[in-house]
Amino acid sequence: MNWGHMAGLLGLLFLFIGLSMLFPLGFSLYYRDAGLAPLLWSSSIVIFIGFLLHFLFRKQKAAGISHREGMFIVASAWICSSLMGSLPFMLGGFMTPTDAIFESFSGFTTTGASILNNIEELPPGIIMWRSFTHWLGGMGIIVLSLAILPFLGVGGMQLYKAEVSGPSPDKLKPRIRDTAMILWKVYVFFTLVLIVLLLLGGLNFFDSLCQTFGTVATGGFSNKNASIAHFDSAYVDWVITGFMFLCGISFALHYKLLTGKVCDVWKSPELRFFSLVGASLILIATIFTYIYSYDSFTQALRYSSFQIISIITSTGFVTYDYLLWPALIQVILLFCMFMGGCAGSTAGGIKCMRIMLLLKLAYRELFRIVHPHAVRQVKMGKILVKDDVLNGVVGFIIIYLNLMIISSLLIAAMGVDLVTSLTSVLACISNIGPGFGQVGPASNYSLLPDPAKWLLSLCMVLGRLEIYTIIVLMIPEFWKK
Amino acid sequence: MNWGHMAGLLGLLFLFIGLSMLFPLGFSLYYRDAGLAPLLWSSSIVIFIGFLLHFLFRKQKAAGISHREGMFIVASAWICSSLMGSLPFMLGGFMTPTDAIFESFSGFTTTGASILNNIEELPPGIIMWRSFTHWLGGMGIIVLSLAILPFLGVGGMQLYKAEVSGPSPDKLKPRIRDTAMILWKVYVFFTLVLIVLLLLGGLNFFDSLCQTFGTVATGGFSNKNASIAHFDSAYVDWVITGFMFLCGISFALHYKLLTGKVCDVWKSPELRFFSLVGASLILIATIFTYIYSYDSFTQALRYSSFQIISIITSTGFVTYDYLLWPALIQVILLFCMFMGGCAGSTAGGIKCMRIMLLLKLAYRELFRIVHPHAVRQVKMGKILVKDDVLNGVVGFIIIYLNLMIISSLLIAAMGVDLVTSLTSVLACISNIGPGFGQVGPASNYSLLPDPAKWLLSLCMVLGRLEIYTIIVLMIPEFWKK
Repeated sequence: MNWGHMAGLLGLLFLFIGLSMLFPLGFSLYYRDAGLAPLLWSSSIVIFIGFLLHFLFRKQKAAGISHREGMFIVASAWICSSLMGSLPFMLGGFMTPTDAIFESFSGFTTTGASILNNIEELPPGIIMWRSFTHWLGGMGIIVLSLAILPFLGVGGMQLYKAEVSGPSPDKLKPRIRDTAMILWKVYVFFTLVLIVLLLLGGLNFFDSLCQTFGTVATGGFSNKNASIAHFDSAYVDWVITGFMFLCGISFALHYKLLTGKVCDVWKSPELRFFSLVGASLILIATIFTYIYSYDSFTQALRYSSFQIISIITSTGFVTYDYLLWPALIQVILLFCMFMGGCAGSTAGGIKCMRIMLLLKLAYRELFRIVHPHAVRQVKMGKILVKDDVLNGVVGFIIIYLNLMIISSLLIAAMGVDLVTSLTSVLACISNIGPGFGQVGPASNYSLLPDPAKWLLSLCMVLGRLEIYTIIVLMIPEFWKK
Repeated sequence: MNWGHMAGLLGLLFLFIGLSMLFPLGFSLYYRDAGLAPLLWSSSIVIFIGFLLHFLFRKQKAAGISHREGMFIVASAWICSSLMGSLPFMLGGFMTPTDAIFESFSGFTTTGASILNNIEELPPGIIMWRSFTHWLGGMGIIVLSLAILPFLGVGGMQLYKAEVSGPSPDKLKPRIRDTAMILWKVYVFFTLVLIVLLLLGGLNFFDSLCQTFGTVATGGFSNKNASIAHFDSAYVDWVITGFMFLCGISFALHYKLLTGKVCDVWKSPELRFFSLVGASLILIATIFTYIYSYDSFTQALRYSSFQIISIITSTGFVTYDYLLWPALIQVILLFCMFMGGCAGSTAGGIKCMRIMLLLKLAYRELFRIVHPHAVRQVKMGKILVKDDVLNGVVGFIIIYLNLMIISSLLIAAMGVDLVTSLTSVLACISNIGPGFGQVGPASNYSLLPDPAKWLLSLCMVLGRLEIYTIIVLMIPEFWKK
């Protein structure tokens, strides 16, 4: 491992994070709030560390990034960003160090789990930084899942690895830069459109920005205690539902769509699956909430659509306390937390791509039992899925479930009840936000013990980085020459 | 499919079930109870149908049993036995038809889930039949999992398929008979030893028989409302704990043990894994219950050992309401419900063998990411595990989880709460018995709506027959020539 090169790259990241803090600082200046000093200090510290690292190690020669270095830099990037991102919360005394780190991890991993009981009492600059971490995290994750992870042999987009030319380490760098630029354009475009639409819906500029960052990153932080329910507007609900859905779809498809290849997009098996599952679940939820919870069909449709899409895309916005809904909807939402959106989007969870491959694998086994001598290949659309991709998906699921088991055992050992232990881990590892029990939609993570918050922060980053990226760092063999 | 031959075989099964009813009938005669007439009628009806089928189709020629016929006969055997077995409950008016069928399915699948609020008010003959269905079901499942399913390419013992010679259909019949005889001897031996041990513990003959049938079949029906807690004896608890553990181990290993191959037995990777997991969980549970629930360490050890072994072997006996224990133990018990015992035992669940293979698969993936060009094979002990066995295990898990999802959605749609919906399905598909929430250890399945009882009966038989055996029957292709 070329440590100097790694440090130099992290230096650049620190510079970027430090400079990003100037954006909320602008709001602090405008509102003359209590966030000014903490943001200024944080920004200065992070920029200083960034400069130091960058200048100390800028002369390091590097012929591209190796496989191992790629893993290391991705994991460090998220962990360092989240740690640096917690400084403004901590320095201003707005939160305890543990809470600040939890909140920052939740922001950069676009989880949206919060420990804040009263968000609205925070200075606007700090609120803006909290929401902005989502936007930065979302930006990172799109590039990560579409440009970096496939080359490292990790993540749901592996399937498409075959479509781009060979993963030579030398060519990795320029291609990542090109791909990133295209994807970011789409992301910025969505952001701008949503801001305008929310302004048209009567939200002020500040509120529009916060909800937009929470939506396009499928994060879930709102600047209101009541989340999106605060605005109590059908227009806002529908606009945000639409954009959560859009941002739960692969950004590679969006790029195709914006360049006019509409036909290609609709042929995507993952998009079809995602839309079909989403639509079916909304239909069921609408019928059940119409019968048991609402007077009008349009209300049932509006609240059901919002909540199903919010959970399935791992956003975690709330317009109604779903623990009050019929049991069926709760079970549906619970399973949605496992599923997540499409690979290559800002959504978390297992991802539709993997769920589809697993279902196809299971069907192949049934087929084999009926026809013991027939050979059947797993296909995704017209692409033949290779065995090592399938093994990767199976391995992912097993490790994902095992991490959930171990983490919930640890949290239960801290005295947290069964339902809360299980769903807090699920909601964090799938980057959702709200769970069930004590971490339900009407409450938050503030009551959990401190060690649980640390563990859940780790879960968030594990889930966000497709698990393998962090897990391999814990294997001693990874560090051997 | 040779329907005549199938009907003839089912005729033999009916004769066997009908004659088995004479055993509880003896108790009814002795106690002169209200179960006499229903048992006599049921026995006569079942024996009559058996004779009819057997004599009508006895002239059917058959050159062995085909793969498809094997699947069909196994599934029909369990379903027919359970339906016939419900007759004594129904005819005596002791239960509604739905409840009777649920109770009988629960018996023959050795699940132990009950709808009875007051077991002790039933006539002794009927109680004995209820417990005896466990013993019959356990007898069937040992032969099924060790002699029949491996040849059909289904089940956890597939791995050992390579060790016995080729699965030629002609040789299937005599080998099954030989294997069955050996296994049954072990089963009967365990039964006799446990009866004697319980008699020595001060239980009367009737109670000894009922607890023994519930234990050796890892079923969980007791003739007491308070389950094993009724006897309130450390001796009884430990004896039953020991026998539940023994019966959670592959009966193929027991046979080896009884023939003196002790070394072979201890080398079994599955047994080591099962013992290690069991011991670790007991240790953790003992420490936590000692701190939070009991005054003495021996008490904590006794109750923890009993409950962990009861759930991990899918027995479902209860000596303490585990919903009152610390959250950690509840989470442990929940995950134990997924795991189950060893393949080739009377235990249900996913089985240790499969869990081990999945963990090895996951480790192989991690290894592949660290060493992208290295090839690593999955081994179980010294046996190289073939890819089609691994695929079978992965397919099993996916279908298992999907069935759980679909079933709990359906049960939640009937208005049952989240925790009860999820854990009732888990407890039935894994053949455990008690779950959490409304179906917790201190309550039972009586409050669930009738359609839920039907669905859960299906889950029990699906879980018991390693899922594939029932699922393939639902695939139209299976029925085509």
